[in-house]
Amino acid sequence: MPTIKVPGFKFAGIACGIKKSKKKDLALVFSERPAIAAALFTTNAIKSPAVLVGMDRVRRGKVQAVVINSGNANACTGAQGSRDADAMCQRTASVLGIAPTLVIPSSTGIIGVPLPMEKVLGGIGAAASRLSAASFSDAAEAILTTDRFPKVSSAKCVIGGKTVRIAGMVKGAGMIAPNMATMLAYILTDAMVDLPCLRHVLREAADPTFNSVTVDGDMSTNDTVLFLANGFAQNPPITRGTRDEAILLKTVRAVMKKLALHLVSDGEGGTKVVEIRVEGAKTIQDASKIANSVARSQLVKTAFYGEDPNFGRILCAVGYAGVRLQPERIDIFFDRVGVVRKGRGLTARERKASQVLKRSTFTVKIRLGLGNESKSIWTSDLSHEYVRINSAYRT
Amino acid sequence: MPTIKVPGFKFAGIACGIKKSKKKDLALVFSERPAIAAALFTTNAIKSPAVLVGMDRVRRGKVQAVVINSGNANACTGAQGSRDADAMCQRTASVLGIAPTLVIPSSTGIIGVPLPMEKVLGGIGAAASRLSAASFSDAAEAILTTDRFPKVSSAKCVIGGKTVRIAGMVKGAGMIAPNMATMLAYILTDAMVDLPCLRHVLREAADPTFNSVTVDGDMSTNDTVLFLANGFAQNPPITRGTRDEAILLKTVRAVMKKLALHLVSDGEGGTKVVEIRVEGAKTIQDASKIANSVARSQLVKTAFYGEDPNFGRILCAVGYAGVRLQPERIDIFFDRVGVVRKGRGLTARERKASQVLKRSTFTVKIRLGLGNESKSIWTSDLSHEYVRINSAYRT
Repeated sequence: MPTIKVPGFKFAGIACGIKKSKKKDLALVFSERPAIAAALFTTNAIKSPAVLVGMDRVRRGKVQAVVINSGNANACTGAQGSRDADAMCQRTASVLGIAPTLVIPSSTGIIGVPLPMEKVLGGIGAAASRLSAASFSDAAEAILTTDRFPKVSSAKCVIGGKTVRIAGMVKGAGMIAPNMATMLAYILTDAMVDLPCLRHVLREAADPTFNSVTVDGDMSTNDTVLFLANGFAQNPPITRGTRDEAILLKTVRAVMKKLALHLVSDGEGGTKVVEIRVEGAKTIQDASKIANSVARSQLVKTAFYGEDPNFGRILCAVGYAGVRLQPERIDIFFDRVGVVRKGRGLTARERKASQVLKRSTFTVKIRLGLGNESKSIWTSDLSHEYVRINSAYRT
Repeated sequence: MPTIKVPGFKFAGIACGIKKSKKKDLALVFSERPAIAAALFTTNAIKSPAVLVGMDRVRRGKVQAVVINSGNANACTGAQGSRDADAMCQRTASVLGIAPTLVIPSSTGIIGVPLPMEKVLGGIGAAASRLSAASFSDAAEAILTTDRFPKVSSAKCVIGGKTVRIAGMVKGAGMIAPNMATMLAYILTDAMVDLPCLRHVLREAADPTFNSVTVDGDMSTNDTVLFLANGFAQNPPITRGTRDEAILLKTVRAVMKKLALHLVSDGEGGTKVVEIRVEGAKTIQDASKIANSVARSQLVKTAFYGEDPNFGRILCAVGYAGVRLQPERIDIFFDRVGVVRKGRGLTARERKASQVLKRSTFTVKIRLGLGNESKSIWTSDLSHEYVRINSAYRT
């Protein structure tokens, strides 16, 4: 894997002892000057104090450092949790010589247990001393919990004659579901962007990517997508509604799409990445309801794991999505193999469909025949390994 | 198990070859005279032709026979499926010497494959010749699919000086979820009841029982709860709003509750029956949303399987239920052991809580501190066995 660099950003990832496994559990992301910042946070009504602090600070639109610990989510930890989130920022600010209001904290891991603050605060000092432009992958490793592999992506584009770099890292294996309640993701660019444009690009890029993947339908208390732009590329500032904005959006979306698919393929115990594509809906909302209903069905996901082209379970999940349907118009395909035609099962196609299911990635296309709107959701299968990981996570 | 009998009803359950396993797969329920009938059907937008025929016939309020096959759901089978459902009724009516409009068909099993009608029609003749008042358990066995055991329940009460009997059988192990999209259930009584009262009792009894259990959140295309009253008890007819109605409702609810808990304990691969009880909600709808959110969370259900008192996952599922909360008011108990107090985890209680999780049945009580409404949902755990059964169901 080539080293990922974004001019003006430095990184560190170390082990400070939060995880019993002694794996890396503390990361810093530092911009040499305050970056323009936009973020999306969990929609869960119960939020970690780290999220509450972050929401407050991002509103001002400037961030210079992010301090992230894994192994402990600092959630459901009462007033102590808020003090601990503040203390993480204070220490980070002090060792980096910046204002605490420019620091965003993130935490991920088990819920309900106070952070081991002595380790965390010591770790922040140790990480700061190792900050380097070449340590992106260390940071990407230090934010992981049950993830099987670090998830990173990068791309570049040219804006106003200047090369602009975009890089992202994400963690999240369980508790992945749409609606920004999903994971920790950090997207960094050296582009010069104004705040309204940065916010717009983040929202637009997140919808068909991070907000269109599901592993288990659970949404965590801590999730955050943070987008920082430090302007080191010295391009002419990108503003709302311009062609440059479109170029940036396209590139950011590509980076996020790759990260989102990494999330699904690292879905806890998942062995497949499946696109659930709904076409011919009356509204995008209808298409989205049906795609989510199918993508989250335990029966559908176990059938994927068993490589069973069980279109009956898919039709069933289509039916209970809460959308008005005309069953006799529905077609279903596994990649190019039709298995349902006008609502009727084509049992003769099962052998051919079984071949598709053996692939590690394929598309289930559901045509409703009611309109012109469509939506895709990416999901994983439900395996023995999912049960093993999640029944033994803490024990 | 004592033989269950309801005066005036006869039963049969035989193997006609739909199931490769040669297990029983065809059942008849016959009332010696037309019974007053009420029913609840699946809310899934995609319905089996059997359900469509049943919905049409039950509207008239009289049913004399039910013909049920297992092993094949006759769903997503197009026009052929409708003809087959009709043919099942025709044959049943003809061998029993009654009008076809008095026969209700049910089918359960795999979706999308046409019924093997030669076997089904032959089976109906064979079953009719074996009808007997003592064969309730044969019928209860013949309606099963992946169920591990037959699920029956019976009770009696006294109305107007007459003993009235109520008996029920249910099938359903996967695809169990609230909202009448859940299972096949047949509740029989010899009470004399008028139609508005029968309908009322069915709806009232189903809400806290069949509509309050979940195994995997999937809702099938075929589900039916049918309630027949043939009047053989010769009690004074029970009507709406009377004390007799209240007695009948209480007894029917008890029968249905037992059947519903059987469903959960036979939840595919389930090893535990867990009551998710939400108290202190502002509205019943809020309580219900939260109870369902927790009861359906894959992460919560795998934690139950792992006997891990992981209140963090419970809080998380409470948080994403889409209800306005004050996190700092939430208390959570495993039976009597408090694990969250005012939104904060009580990690010192974990060992005691672990003891509760080892039980085969326990209650998770979630107090919101916002009002006076409450709701219970019963759920199972998510085990390796669930994945095994459902990834291999057809293969």
